[in-house]
Amino acid sequence: VQLPEFVHQDIPNVEVERLEGVYGPLAQTVRELVDATIRTTAPAEEVALAQAELESALRRLRASELPGAAGVRYNSEGRFWDWGNAVVGLRNATALPLKIVADESGRRHAEAVLGAAQEGPPGFVHGGVQALLLDQIMGVTASNYNRLTMTGTLTIRYRRGTPLGPVRLEAWISGESERKVFVEATVADAQGVTAEATGVFIIPSWVSAAAG
Amino acid sequence: VQLPEFVHQDIPNVEVERLEGVYGPLAQTVRELVDATIRTTAPAEEVALAQAELESALRRLRASELPGAAGVRYNSEGRFWDWGNAVVGLRNATALPLKIVADESGRRHAEAVLGAAQEGPPGFVHGGVQALLLDQIMGVTASNYNRLTMTGTLTIRYRRGTPLGPVRLEAWISGESERKVFVEATVADAQGVTAEATGVFIIPSWVSAAAG
Repeated sequence: VQLPEFVHQDIPNVEVERLEGVYGPLAQTVRELVDATIRTTAPAEEVALAQAELESALRRLRASELPGAAGVRYNSEGRFWDWGNAVVGLRNATALPLKIVADESGRRHAEAVLGAAQEGPPGFVHGGVQALLLDQIMGVTASNYNRLTMTGTLTIRYRRGTPLGPVRLEAWISGESERKVFVEATVADAQGVTAEATGVFIIPSWVSAAAG
Repeated sequence: VQLPEFVHQDIPNVEVERLEGVYGPLAQTVRELVDATIRTTAPAEEVALAQAELESALRRLRASELPGAAGVRYNSEGRFWDWGNAVVGLRNATALPLKIVADESGRRHAEAVLGAAQEGPPGFVHGGVQALLLDQIMGVTASNYNRLTMTGTLTIRYRRGTPLGPVRLEAWISGESERKVFVEATVADAQGVTAEATGVFIIPSWVSAAAG
Protein backbone atom coordinates (compact mmCIF):
# COMPACT_ATOMS: atom_id res chain seq x y z
CA VAL A 1 0.00 0.00 0.00
CA GLN A 2 1.29 3.45 -0.96
CA LEU A 3 1.42 5.79 2.05
CA PRO A 4 1.38 9.57 2.28
CA GLU A 5 4.86 10.87 2.94
CA PHE A 6 5.98 14.31 4.07
CA VAL A 7 9.07 15.87 2.49
CA HIS A 8 11.78 17.39 4.62
CA GLN A 9 12.90 20.60 2.89
CA ASP A 10 15.54 22.27 4.97
CA ILE A 11 14.94 25.95 4.42
CA PRO A 12 14.48 28.37 7.33
CA ASN A 13 11.12 29.98 8.13
CA VAL A 14 12.24 33.31 6.68
CA GLU A 15 12.81 31.62 3.32
CA VAL A 16 9.42 29.85 3.54
CA GLU A 17 7.84 33.27 4.10
CA ARG A 18 9.78 34.85 1.23
CA LEU A 19 8.52 32.11 -1.10
CA GLU A 20 4.96 32.66 0.15
CA GLY A 21 5.38 36.33 -0.78
CA VAL A 22 6.48 35.38 -4.30
CA TYR A 23 3.95 32.64 -5.12
CA GLY A 24 0.95 33.61 -2.97
CA PRO A 25 0.07 36.75 -4.97
CA LEU A 26 0.62 34.80 -8.22
CA ALA A 27 -1.97 32.23 -7.10
CA GLN A 28 -4.35 35.03 -6.11
CA THR A 29 -4.13 36.50 -9.62
CA VAL A 30 -4.79 33.06 -11.12
CA ARG A 31 -7.87 32.78 -8.85
CA GLU A 32 -9.11 36.06 -10.31
CA LEU A 33 -8.45 34.68 -13.79
CA VAL A 34 -10.53 31.59 -12.99
CA ASP A 35 -13.46 33.84 -12.06
CA ALA A 36 -12.97 36.15 -15.06
CA THR A 37 -12.76 33.21 -17.48
CA ILE A 38 -16.22 32.08 -16.39
CA ARG A 39 -17.81 35.54 -16.41
CA THR A 40 -16.12 37.48 -19.22
CA THR A 41 -18.08 38.65 -22.23
CA ALA A 42 -14.95 40.05 -23.92
CA PRO A 43 -14.97 39.61 -27.71
CA ALA A 44 -12.88 36.96 -29.48
CA GLU A 45 -10.10 39.42 -30.45
CA GLU A 46 -9.56 40.51 -26.83
CA VAL A 47 -9.70 36.91 -25.64
CA ALA A 48 -7.00 36.02 -28.21
CA LEU A 49 -4.76 38.81 -26.87
CA ALA A 50 -5.40 37.70 -23.28
CA GLN A 51 -4.68 34.11 -24.21
CA ALA A 52 -1.32 35.06 -25.76
CA GLU A 53 -0.36 36.82 -22.52
CA LEU A 54 -1.41 33.82 -20.44
CA GLU A 55 0.62 31.47 -22.63
CA SER A 56 3.68 33.67 -22.28
CA ALA A 57 3.29 33.65 -18.49
CA LEU A 58 2.77 29.88 -18.58
CA ARG A 59 6.07 29.38 -20.43
CA ARG A 60 7.90 31.44 -17.80
CA LEU A 61 6.42 29.36 -14.98
CA ARG A 62 6.91 26.02 -16.74
CA ALA A 63 10.60 26.78 -17.43
CA SER A 64 11.46 25.19 -14.08
CA GLU A 65 9.04 23.20 -11.98
CA LEU A 66 8.61 20.29 -9.59
CA PRO A 67 8.24 16.93 -11.35
CA GLY A 68 4.86 16.29 -9.68
CA ALA A 69 2.45 17.54 -7.04
CA ALA A 70 3.63 19.83 -4.22
CA GLY A 71 3.05 17.40 -1.34
CA VAL A 72 3.39 18.48 2.27
CA ARG A 73 6.77 19.79 3.40
CA TYR A 74 8.38 20.62 6.72
CA ASN A 75 11.61 22.15 7.94
CA SER A 76 13.87 21.71 10.94
CA GLU A 77 12.14 24.60 12.71
CA GLY A 78 8.98 22.44 12.87
CA ARG A 79 7.02 24.38 10.27
CA PHE A 80 4.72 22.50 7.86
CA TRP A 81 3.35 23.85 4.59
CA ASP A 82 0.84 22.30 2.17
CA TRP A 83 0.80 24.91 -0.57
CA GLY A 84 -0.82 22.59 -3.11
CA ASN A 85 -3.76 21.44 -0.97
CA ALA A 86 -7.06 21.47 -2.88
CA VAL A 87 -8.86 23.45 -0.14
CA VAL A 88 -6.31 25.41 1.87
CA GLY A 89 -3.27 25.52 -0.44
CA LEU A 90 -1.74 29.01 -0.70
CA ARG A 91 -0.44 28.21 -4.20
CA ASN A 92 -3.50 26.28 -5.40
CA ALA A 93 -5.76 28.67 -7.35
CA THR A 94 -8.62 26.14 -7.21
CA ALA A 95 -8.45 26.41 -3.39
CA LEU A 96 -10.30 29.41 -1.93
CA PRO A 97 -7.96 29.12 0.06
CA LEU A 98 -10.06 28.32 3.13
CA LYS A 99 -8.80 29.86 6.39
CA ILE A 100 -9.61 27.49 9.25
CA VAL A 101 -9.62 28.96 12.75
CA ALA A 102 -9.66 27.00 16.04
CA ASP A 103 -11.06 28.14 19.37
CA GLU A 104 -9.63 27.00 22.71
CA SER A 105 -11.82 23.90 22.85
CA GLY A 106 -10.55 22.60 19.50
CA ARG A 107 -13.80 23.50 17.72
CA ARG A 108 -13.03 24.95 14.30
CA HIS A 109 -14.72 27.38 11.96
CA ALA A 110 -14.10 29.02 8.62
CA GLU A 111 -15.76 31.76 6.64
CA ALA A 112 -15.66 32.02 2.89
CA VAL A 113 -17.37 33.78 0.03
CA LEU A 114 -18.34 31.32 -2.68
CA GLY A 115 -18.75 32.55 -6.23
CA ALA A 116 -18.88 31.68 -9.91
CA ALA A 117 -16.26 28.91 -9.71
CA GLN A 118 -18.17 27.08 -6.94
CA GLU A 119 -21.54 26.95 -8.71
CA GLY A 120 -23.65 23.81 -9.15
CA PRO A 121 -27.39 24.45 -9.52
CA PRO A 122 -27.85 27.98 -10.94
CA GLY A 123 -27.14 30.50 -8.19
CA PHE A 124 -26.25 27.82 -5.63
CA VAL A 125 -23.07 26.32 -4.26
CA HIS A 126 -22.28 22.92 -5.80
CA GLY A 127 -23.17 20.19 -3.30
CA GLY A 128 -19.81 18.59 -3.97
CA VAL A 129 -17.96 21.83 -3.19
CA GLN A 130 -19.63 21.83 0.22
CA ALA A 131 -18.44 18.23 0.65
CA LEU A 132 -14.92 19.30 -0.35
CA LEU A 133 -14.82 22.11 2.21
CA LEU A 134 -16.42 19.94 4.90
CA ASP A 135 -13.92 17.12 4.39
CA GLN A 136 -11.03 19.54 4.92
CA ILE A 137 -12.32 21.30 8.03
CA MET A 138 -13.49 18.00 9.54
CA GLY A 139 -10.15 16.33 8.78
CA VAL A 140 -8.23 19.17 10.40
CA THR A 141 -10.55 19.04 13.41
CA ALA A 142 -9.89 15.29 13.73
CA SER A 143 -6.13 15.55 13.37
CA ASN A 144 -5.71 18.81 15.33
CA TYR A 145 -2.42 19.08 13.38
CA ASN A 146 -0.81 16.72 15.89
CA ARG A 147 -1.75 13.27 14.59
CA LEU A 148 -2.33 11.78 11.14
CA THR A 149 -5.95 10.97 10.31
CA MET A 150 -7.52 9.83 7.03
CA THR A 151 -11.19 10.23 6.11
CA GLY A 152 -12.98 6.92 6.72
CA THR A 153 -16.63 7.81 6.13
CA LEU A 154 -18.21 11.14 5.30
CA THR A 155 -21.99 11.69 5.32
CA ILE A 156 -23.60 14.96 4.32
CA ARG A 157 -27.29 15.86 4.65
CA TYR A 158 -28.31 18.79 2.52
CA ARG A 159 -31.24 20.57 4.19
CA ARG A 160 -31.72 23.14 1.43
CA GLY A 161 -29.71 24.83 -1.30
CA THR A 162 -26.83 27.07 -0.22
CA PRO A 163 -26.95 30.31 -2.25
CA LEU A 164 -23.65 31.59 -3.65
CA GLY A 165 -22.21 34.24 -1.33
CA PRO A 166 -20.88 34.14 2.24
CA VAL A 167 -20.94 30.84 4.12
CA ARG A 168 -19.71 29.72 7.51
CA LEU A 169 -18.43 26.24 8.31
CA GLU A 170 -18.14 24.78 11.81
CA ALA A 171 -16.68 21.45 12.93
CA TRP A 172 -16.18 19.71 16.26
CA ILE A 173 -15.19 16.31 17.64
CA SER A 174 -18.24 14.41 18.93
CA GLY A 175 -16.42 11.30 20.13
CA GLU A 176 -13.35 9.08 19.91
CA SER A 177 -12.70 5.36 20.25
CA GLU A 178 -9.32 3.69 19.69
CA ARG A 179 -8.34 4.53 16.12
CA LYS A 180 -11.56 6.38 15.21
CA VAL A 181 -12.34 10.08 15.63
CA PHE A 182 -15.98 11.12 15.15
CA VAL A 183 -16.51 14.63 13.82
CA GLU A 184 -19.65 16.69 13.13
CA ALA A 185 -19.90 19.82 11.03
CA THR A 186 -22.30 22.31 9.48
CA VAL A 187 -22.48 24.68 6.52
CA ALA A 188 -24.58 27.80 7.12
CA ASP A 189 -25.62 30.98 5.35
CA ALA A 190 -27.03 34.09 7.04
CA GLN A 191 -30.41 32.31 7.44
CA GLY A 192 -28.99 29.27 9.23
CA VAL A 193 -27.69 25.78 8.65
CA THR A 194 -27.98 24.53 5.04
CA ALA A 195 -26.08 21.24 5.37
CA GLU A 196 -24.83 19.03 8.19
CA ALA A 197 -22.17 16.37 8.13
CA THR A 198 -20.84 13.50 10.20
CA GLY A 199 -17.50 11.87 9.58
CA VAL A 200 -15.38 9.05 10.89
CA PHE A 201 -11.67 9.76 10.66
CA ILE A 202 -9.18 6.94 11.03
CA ILE A 203 -5.76 6.98 12.65
CA PRO A 204 -3.92 4.59 10.27
CA SER A 205 -2.77 1.35 11.91
CA TRP A 206 0.83 1.88 10.76
CA VAL A 207 0.83 5.15 12.76
CA SER A 208 -0.53 3.38 15.85
CA ALA A 209 2.09 0.67 15.29
CA ALA A 210 4.89 3.22 14.97
CA ALA A 211 3.72 5.03 18.10
CA GLY A 212 3.18 1.80 20.09
CA VAL B 1 -36.95 29.78 -0.39
CA GLN B 2 -34.64 30.75 -3.25
CA LEU B 3 -34.91 28.28 -6.15
CA PRO B 4 -32.45 27.43 -8.91
CA GLU B 5 -33.52 29.09 -12.13
CA PHE B 6 -32.37 28.46 -15.67
CA VAL B 7 -31.79 31.42 -18.00
CA HIS B 8 -33.22 31.45 -21.51
CA GLN B 9 -30.53 32.89 -23.80
CA ASP B 10 -31.81 32.89 -27.33
CA ILE B 11 -28.74 32.26 -29.40
CA PRO B 12 -28.61 29.45 -32.00
CA ASN B 13 -26.50 26.34 -31.49
CA VAL B 14 -23.90 27.56 -33.99
CA GLU B 15 -23.33 30.64 -31.83
CA VAL B 16 -23.12 28.49 -28.67
CA GLU B 17 -20.44 26.45 -30.41
CA ARG B 18 -18.56 29.53 -31.60
CA LEU B 19 -18.47 30.83 -28.01
CA GLU B 20 -17.23 27.44 -26.79
CA GLY B 21 -14.41 27.75 -29.33
CA VAL B 22 -13.47 31.18 -27.95
CA TYR B 23 -13.72 30.54 -24.19
CA GLY B 24 -12.97 26.79 -23.95
CA PRO B 25 -9.29 27.10 -24.93
CA LEU B 26 -8.95 30.13 -22.62
CA ALA B 27 -10.17 28.03 -19.68
CA GLN B 28 -7.79 25.24 -20.67
CA THR B 29 -4.85 27.64 -20.54
CA VAL B 30 -5.99 28.87 -17.10
CA ARG B 31 -6.14 25.20 -15.97
CA GLU B 32 -2.50 24.85 -17.05
CA LEU B 33 -1.69 28.02 -15.12
CA VAL B 34 -3.31 26.58 -11.99
CA ASP B 35 -1.03 23.55 -12.24
CA ALA B 36 2.07 25.63 -13.06
CA THR B 37 1.41 28.02 -10.14
CA ILE B 38 1.57 25.08 -7.72
CA ARG B 39 4.63 23.43 -9.29
CA THR B 40 6.82 26.26 -10.59
CA THR B 41 10.26 26.89 -9.14
CA ALA B 42 10.78 29.98 -11.33
CA PRO B 43 12.71 32.76 -9.56
CA ALA B 44 11.01 35.89 -8.22
CA GLU B 45 11.99 38.04 -11.23
CA GLU B 46 10.39 35.63 -13.71
CA VAL B 47 7.31 35.29 -11.50
CA ALA B 48 7.00 39.11 -11.46
CA LEU B 49 7.09 39.19 -15.28
CA ALA B 50 4.52 36.37 -15.47
CA GLN B 51 2.31 38.14 -12.95
CA ALA B 52 2.35 41.36 -15.01
CA GLU B 53 1.22 39.38 -18.08
CA LEU B 54 -1.55 37.69 -16.09
CA GLU B 55 -2.76 41.04 -14.76
CA SER B 56 -2.86 42.49 -18.26
CA ALA B 57 -4.91 39.50 -19.46
CA LEU B 58 -7.18 39.87 -16.42
CA ARG B 59 -7.92 43.51 -17.28
CA ARG B 60 -8.89 42.50 -20.83
CA LEU B 61 -11.28 39.82 -19.55
CA ARG B 62 -12.73 41.99 -16.77
CA ALA B 63 -13.47 44.87 -19.20
CA SER B 64 -16.89 43.31 -19.84
CA GLU B 65 -18.37 40.51 -17.79
CA LEU B 66 -21.53 39.01 -16.37
CA PRO B 67 -22.61 40.59 -13.06
CA GLY B 68 -22.52 37.22 -11.26
CA ALA B 69 -22.12 33.48 -11.75
CA ALA B 70 -22.74 31.86 -15.15
CA GLY B 71 -25.81 29.82 -14.16
CA VAL B 72 -27.34 27.27 -16.50
CA ARG B 73 -28.64 28.52 -19.84
CA TYR B 74 -30.75 27.09 -22.64
CA ASN B 75 -31.87 28.14 -26.07
CA SER B 76 -34.94 27.59 -28.23
CA GLU B 77 -33.25 24.66 -29.96
CA GLY B 78 -33.38 22.79 -26.63
CA ARG B 79 -29.69 23.00 -25.89
CA PHE B 80 -28.50 23.48 -22.28
CA TRP B 81 -25.07 24.66 -21.20
CA ASP B 82 -23.54 24.95 -17.71
CA TRP B 83 -20.17 26.46 -18.52
CA GLY B 84 -19.52 27.57 -14.95
CA ASN B 85 -20.25 24.26 -13.21
CA ALA B 86 -17.60 23.40 -10.59
CA VAL B 87 -17.06 19.88 -11.98
CA VAL B 88 -18.06 19.80 -15.65
CA GLY B 89 -18.02 23.51 -16.64
CA LEU B 90 -16.19 24.14 -19.94
CA ARG B 91 -15.28 27.66 -18.80
CA ASN B 92 -14.49 26.77 -15.17
CA ALA B 93 -10.72 26.25 -14.82
CA THR B 94 -11.22 24.66 -11.40
CA ALA B 95 -13.35 21.97 -13.13
CA LEU B 96 -11.34 19.17 -14.74
CA PRO B 97 -13.76 19.37 -16.66
CA LEU B 98 -15.15 15.89 -16.01
CA LYS B 99 -16.59 14.13 -19.09
CA ILE B 100 -19.48 11.93 -18.00
CA VAL B 101 -20.55 9.15 -20.38
CA ALA B 102 -23.77 7.11 -20.19
CA ASP B 103 -24.31 3.58 -21.44
CA GLU B 104 -27.68 2.34 -22.75
CA SER B 105 -28.87 1.31 -19.27
CA GLY B 106 -28.35 4.80 -17.82
CA ARG B 107 -25.25 3.71 -15.90
CA ARG B 108 -22.62 6.45 -16.11
CA HIS B 109 -18.87 6.54 -15.97
CA ALA B 110 -16.09 9.09 -16.25
CA GLU B 111 -12.32 8.92 -16.49
CA ALA B 112 -10.00 11.64 -15.31
CA VAL B 113 -6.37 12.22 -14.49
CA LEU B 114 -6.00 13.95 -11.12
CA GLY B 115 -2.90 16.01 -10.43
CA ALA B 116 -1.28 18.71 -8.33
CA ALA B 117 -4.46 20.80 -7.96
CA GLN B 118 -6.45 17.85 -6.57
CA GLU B 119 -3.98 16.86 -3.84
CA GLY B 120 -4.90 16.29 -0.20
CA PRO B 121 -2.57 13.93 1.70
CA PRO B 122 0.85 14.04 -0.03
CA GLY B 123 0.64 12.10 -3.31
CA PHE B 124 -3.07 11.33 -2.87
CA VAL B 125 -6.33 12.74 -4.18
CA HIS B 126 -8.06 14.97 -1.61
CA GLY B 127 -10.98 13.02 -0.08
CA GLY B 128 -13.19 16.06 -0.66
CA VAL B 129 -12.28 16.19 -4.34
CA GLN B 130 -13.52 12.63 -4.66
CA ALA B 131 -16.74 13.74 -2.94
CA LEU B 132 -17.01 16.65 -5.39
CA LEU B 133 -16.66 14.40 -8.44
CA LEU B 134 -18.98 11.76 -6.96
CA ASP B 135 -21.71 14.30 -6.21
CA GLN B 136 -21.69 15.47 -9.83
CA ILE B 137 -21.72 12.04 -11.52
CA MET B 138 -24.32 10.75 -9.04
CA GLY B 139 -26.51 13.81 -9.51
CA VAL B 140 -26.40 13.48 -13.28
CA THR B 141 -27.21 9.77 -12.96
CA ALA B 142 -30.22 10.63 -10.79
CA SER B 143 -31.53 13.40 -13.04
CA ASN B 144 -30.66 11.71 -16.35
CA TYR B 145 -30.82 15.27 -17.74
CA ASN B 146 -34.61 14.99 -17.93
CA ARG B 147 -35.73 15.88 -14.39
CA LEU B 148 -34.47 18.21 -11.70
CA THR B 149 -32.89 16.50 -8.70
CA MET B 150 -31.04 18.00 -5.72
CA THR B 151 -28.58 16.10 -3.52
CA GLY B 152 -30.38 15.01 -0.32
CA THR B 153 -27.80 12.82 1.40
CA LEU B 154 -24.35 11.77 0.26
CA THR B 155 -22.29 9.11 2.07
CA ILE B 156 -18.77 8.17 1.05
CA ARG B 157 -16.71 5.30 2.42
CA TYR B 158 -13.02 5.63 1.74
CA ARG B 159 -11.47 2.16 1.54
CA ARG B 160 -7.91 3.38 1.01
CA GLY B 161 -6.06 6.40 -0.35
CA THR B 162 -6.49 7.17 -4.06
CA PRO B 163 -3.05 8.00 -5.52
CA LEU B 164 -2.86 11.01 -7.84
CA GLY B 165 -3.09 9.86 -11.46
CA PRO B 166 -5.83 8.22 -13.53
CA VAL B 167 -9.14 7.40 -11.83
CA ARG B 168 -12.42 5.97 -13.02
CA LEU B 169 -15.82 6.85 -11.58
CA GLU B 170 -18.98 4.79 -12.03
CA ALA B 171 -22.54 5.56 -10.92
CA TRP B 172 -25.88 3.81 -11.22
CA ILE B 173 -29.43 4.07 -9.88
CA SER B 174 -30.10 1.42 -7.24
CA GLY B 175 -33.73 2.32 -6.52
CA GLU B 176 -36.48 4.94 -6.63
CA SER B 177 -39.49 5.78 -4.47
CA GLU B 178 -41.80 8.75 -5.06
CA ARG B 179 -39.57 11.84 -4.88
CA LYS B 180 -36.34 9.98 -3.98
CA VAL B 181 -33.74 8.52 -6.33
CA PHE B 182 -31.11 6.22 -4.77
CA VAL B 183 -27.73 6.21 -6.47
CA GLU B 184 -24.54 4.23 -5.85
CA ALA B 185 -21.09 5.02 -7.15
CA THR B 186 -17.42 4.10 -6.96
CA VAL B 187 -14.01 5.68 -7.43
CA ALA B 188 -11.31 3.30 -8.67
CA ASP B 189 -7.66 3.34 -9.66
CA ALA B 190 -5.90 0.63 -11.71
CA GLN B 191 -5.82 -1.65 -8.61
CA GLY B 192 -9.56 -1.45 -7.95
CA VAL B 193 -12.17 0.46 -5.97
CA THR B 194 -10.75 3.05 -3.54
CA ALA B 195 -14.03 4.68 -2.41
CA GLU B 196 -17.72 3.87 -2.62
CA ALA B 197 -20.70 6.16 -2.24
CA THR B 198 -24.44 6.08 -1.75
CA GLY B 199 -26.68 9.05 -2.32
CA VAL B 200 -30.31 10.04 -2.02
CA PHE B 201 -31.35 12.59 -4.61
CA ILE B 202 -34.59 14.49 -4.18
CA ILE B 203 -37.03 15.64 -6.82
CA PRO B 204 -38.09 19.01 -5.30
CA SER B 205 -41.75 19.16 -4.25
CA TRP B 206 -42.34 22.31 -6.31
CA VAL B 207 -41.29 20.32 -9.41
CA SER B 208 -43.68 17.48 -8.51
CA ALA B 209 -46.36 20.10 -7.90
CA ALA B 210 -45.71 21.78 -11.24
CA ALA B 211 -45.79 18.42 -13.06
CA GLY B 212 -48.86 17.17 -11.15
